[in-house]
Amino acid sequence: MTGTDNRPLTVLNDNLGNNVIVELRYDKEYRGKLNGYDPHLNLVMEDVKEFIDGEKVREMDKAMVRGDNVVYVSP
Amino acid sequence: MTGTDNRPLTVLNDNLGNNVIVELRYDKEYRGKLNGYDPHLNLVMEDVKEFIDGEKVREMDKAMVRGDNVVYVSP
Amino acid sequence: MTGTDNRPLTVLNDNLGNNVIVELRYDKEYRGKLNGYDPHLNLVMEDVKEFIDGEKVREMDKAMVRGDNVVYVSP
Amino acid sequence: MTGTDNRPLTVLNDNLGNNVIVELRYDKEYRGKLNGYDPHLNLVMEDVKEFIDGEKVREMDKAMVRGDNVVYVSP
Amino acid sequence: MTGTDNRPLTVLNDNLGNNVIVELRYDKEYRGKLNGYDPHLNLVMEDVKEFIDGEKVREMDKAMVRGDNVVYVSP
Amino acid sequence: MTGTDNRPLTVLNDNLGNNVIVELRYDKEYRGKLNGYDPHLNLVMEDVKEFIDGEKVREMDKAMVRGDNVVYVSP
Amino acid sequence: MTGTDNRPLTVLNDNLGNNVIVELRYDKEYRGKLNGYDPHLNLVMEDVKEFIDGEKVREMDKAMVRGDNVVYVSP
Repeated sequence: MTGTDNRPLTVLNDNLGNNVIVELRYDKEYRGKLNGYDPHLNLVMEDVKEFIDGEKVREMDKAMVRGDNVVYVSP
Repeated sequence: MTGTDNRPLTVLNDNLGNNVIVELRYDKEYRGKLNGYDPHLNLVMEDVKEFIDGEKVREMDKAMVRGDNVVYVSP
Repeated sequence: MTGTDNRPLTVLNDNLGNNVIVELRYDKEYRGKLNGYDPHLNLVMEDVKEFIDGEKVREMDKAMVRGDNVVYVSP
Repeated sequence: MTGTDNRPLTVLNDNLGNNVIVELRYDKEYRGKLNGYDPHLNLVMEDVKEFIDGEKVREMDKAMVRGDNVVYVSP
Repeated sequence: MTGTDNRPLTVLNDNLGNNVIVELRYDKEYRGKLNGYDPHLNLVMEDVKEFIDGEKVREMDKAMVRGDNVVYVSP
Repeated sequence: MTGTDNRPLTVLNDNLGNNVIVELRYDKEYRGKLNGYDPHLNLVMEDVKEFIDGEKVREMDKAMVRGDNVVYVSP
Repeated sequence: MTGTDNRPLTVLNDNLGNNVIVELRYDKEYRGKLNGYDPHLNLVMEDVKEFIDGEKVREMDKAMVRGDNVVYVSP
């Protein structure tokens, strides 16, 4: 049941190259392809759309998102 | 009385595969199956429903929830 | 005077199995039996009643409360 | 001038058994006897009166106050 | 897929000398050339324009931005 | 220019026994004699006057101020 | 490109003795001569003017500013 398959960082690793939703504090949300991460949950994303309170406010080719503000990452 | 059975991380481990309620700061709540965790209380959840102020706002197949924002986890 | 009897973690240990009041930030309060703890002040509680602004909002058989948000624990 | 007598933790140690005022963030104040402490400034207090915005809201026989929220301790 | 090319710090390193957008908490944004960084995500920027709530409020030849407040860095 | 004379902790050490202004977050200010400090910037003060929003609200013979909340210390 | 000349702490070191702008959280700003620093970004400043929301509120001969609250330092 507790195999390494479900460790939090493994979930990030399994989704490299996939589209994910990244919810941050302050009602910010980022949608795009997950291209990298580190143990602090800093994330590298590609083709990112930024939403604030549900409204799209910016598109970015690439973004490095600081892990401190992450609420969840959903594949 | 203080056996290892009631250490905080043991409670998470004992509930792998079970449905849990995860209450975060800012009146956010996640309900779903607990599939993984790490010592920072980062959690892996499956079939997750997100509630804000008691209202369901999203369903997710899977989510990795950052431990920093956790208030409590209840089996 | 400074015997080990009054170190903060000792107080938690002495109250394992007893009912305690756990006050968290944001005017949240948890009342129930203290069943476990760790050095981060993460707590395991049983038969927990959650109060917000003094009003009971939930009962839980068990809860693992994250230590970060603790203001005080009172036996 | 910089003798060990005036190190912050020494001040706590010198006041074990004495009445102290503990001011926390969010305009909370605790008055009572200081019975213990640790290097994180977690405090053990006895015969504690809790004040919010200057108004007494609770009395407790004993409380373990988390150091994170401390603003100051005054003998 | 998880090659070192997409680690968060590598993204910063690859963009040394390039113009980047640095979004901080509190709706602050800095635009300018990225000239340096460290593992805490402290950043050195050149020819920096500071925006608050989308409005330009200051121009600086150079600025050392503390990493703690970073939300994301986008090339 | 970078001699040890101007390291932040040295400035505290040089002012032991002198009157200082300690500005904390939340518009709190403490004025009094600096009697001790540690590397976390926890401070021991004597004959302390506490000001909130510029108004004197309390006088204390002694106070141990937690370093976490310090904005600046000025001799 | 990544020479040591542009590491964040090097920028502070290069500006010892120069006038800098230090922006803190909560719209506080300090202008004066940078006389010292440490790796936590604690700063020693001389002939300091404190501004809140753009208005000068205090002048100080010397101040030790805690690094935690720094948003940026600009020469």
